[in-house]
Amino acid sequence: MSDAPLGGAIGIDIGGSKILGLVIAHNGTVRSRLQLPTPKDSIEDLLAALTRIVEQLDEGDERLPLGIGLPGMIGRGGTVAFSPHLPATAGLDPAVALCRLLGDDREIVIENDANCALLAEHRLGAAQGIDDVVMITLGTGIGGALMSDGTLRRGANGFAGEVGHMVLAVDGPPCPCGAKGCWERYASGSGLARLARDAAVGGRLRSVTEAIGGDPKAVRGEDVTAAAALGDPEAQAVVDEAGWWLARGIANVVCVIDPELVVLGGGMSAAALALLPSATRHLGELLEGSQRRPKVELAVAELGADAGAIGAALLGRDGI
Amino acid sequence: MSDAPLGGAIGIDIGGSKILGLVIAHNGTVRSRLQLPTPKDSIEDLLAALTRIVEQLDEGDERLPLGIGLPGMIGRGGTVAFSPHLPATAGLDPAVALCRLLGDDREIVIENDANCALLAEHRLGAAQGIDDVVMITLGTGIGGALMSDGTLRRGANGFAGEVGHMVLAVDGPPCPCGAKGCWERYASGSGLARLARDAAVGGRLRSVTEAIGGDPKAVRGEDVTAAAALGDPEAQAVVDEAGWWLARGIANVVCVIDPELVVLGGGMSAAALALLPSATRHLGELLEGSQRRPKVELAVAELGADAGAIGAALLGRDGI
Repeated sequence: MSDAPLGGAIGIDIGGSKILGLVIAHNGTVRSRLQLPTPKDSIEDLLAALTRIVEQLDEGDERLPLGIGLPGMIGRGGTVAFSPHLPATAGLDPAVALCRLLGDDREIVIENDANCALLAEHRLGAAQGIDDVVMITLGTGIGGALMSDGTLRRGANGFAGEVGHMVLAVDGPPCPCGAKGCWERYASGSGLARLARDAAVGGRLRSVTEAIGGDPKAVRGEDVTAAAALGDPEAQAVVDEAGWWLARGIANVVCVIDPELVVLGGGMSAAALALLPSATRHLGELLEGSQRRPKVELAVAELGADAGAIGAALLGRDGI
Repeated sequence: MSDAPLGGAIGIDIGGSKILGLVIAHNGTVRSRLQLPTPKDSIEDLLAALTRIVEQLDEGDERLPLGIGLPGMIGRGGTVAFSPHLPATAGLDPAVALCRLLGDDREIVIENDANCALLAEHRLGAAQGIDDVVMITLGTGIGGALMSDGTLRRGANGFAGEVGHMVLAVDGPPCPCGAKGCWERYASGSGLARLARDAAVGGRLRSVTEAIGGDPKAVRGEDVTAAAALGDPEAQAVVDEAGWWLARGIANVVCVIDPELVVLGGGMSAAALALLPSATRHLGELLEGSQRRPKVELAVAELGADAGAIGAALLGRDGI
């Protein structure tokens, strides 16, 4: 680990729609940043975008340590097994490919994006000083990351934390993964959208439907969270329903690994904030033996949309 | 750790119906054993039984190291938070109480029984050499224990591995814990019994029902596994159904922690053996991304009913 005052590191977070690159200083503060749209059609374009970000963020002649986070199942050796939003990356070892393009031999660490975010929240954000933590990332789907006894736990293959595909309702709606009733069908961005649309089509969101022009099928999750914040009781009921599902999945995770804290993050952080009060209340009721055990705390990620890139930079600098 | 040729240790496994005590030699083989029924009505009777076992198993004047496993939520400090089959033990610190009765100050380790069994299977049984393992214990309910990177993971409070209360069907049958559709309503001993009874009452187990005298409500899980082993297709269908539920819960656990191996143990090991082929087949289909990831192995515990007591002895001797 470099503690030299100028010793920085580059972190890159490859998301479904954009790539965020940034440089952190030795104390973790962000010194510079660059964002590009994610090229999704070809590996070559994706690698070219990554190369451009690294070349622009490198400082003078110094080749900074580099970490990269991306969604999906990343093998413990850094090869992408499967990334649902970047299917072309399957089988790719981004570190090897990028070193070739950069023409240098710096160490590059590749890691699941939720693992990166959890590491950043543990070092610098909502989970400081807490060593048994689960990160739940709410986006199009639900991802996750686990830390026990202060160390990220990646599982035998590096695939730990794929919590969005826990099944909560074996007869529930089908999931693109092939199962039915996966958690992310209810509590992710698309899950909230589905609950909102079902409520509107069933006549339970009259004011919201009117406000957006009358088509219940056009009601979006953010229409409902906005109306709920303004006091619409029908919208609040849908938010409460989504909060219950969020809590139910968290209670399942707690049964398995018993964390002290659950941090909610990911691209749907605004929704996470909206769901937090109801999820916290329901979690209290849903935990097994809830009368006899300490509460599990729920918190929203403090580093927001930067968490993944900051964590990637920390991993690049300090190793896994 | 004592490696003297005669250095033994006592392990005690407190079950819902019986207490097993045994002495292991330095290499883990069982040197002597004693079993008593579990006194369930008073703490005093339970402690008296434990005292009797220890006094009979101590060898000559030597006070052997002692570990005790029991079901339920055991705090990291060794205090019982909640043990569903031994409710009178809530709040008890068995080590302190037992030291007083034994009149000595030996170190006594208290641990959840599934954690004990997993440690024994890792050192001496089905999980040797495998460092990311989940133990699933099938008995009246479903318990569990987790090991990652070769270390038992107890969670923030010591309650990790309570996997039987993951909810798989939010509208499923009620569970004594207060939730609906917990995993153990389907795949434990009582879960198999429920599936069997429902099938018989619905007319789907005609031969089995006839063989036990005609009352479909009297059909037990073991009647069905026995008939399935003899080739009865209706019984095989019920075993397959239970195997599916076993696999569905295991697939949920795999989403969260990604083990290399799942060991099935506990008091229903005969049923585990009966369910293994069908559970293994369904698990292959149910794992997320199953085409793109290594298989998760399923195995039955090798140390059988002794695993918990052997693991308790190992913990008593070597510490946690």
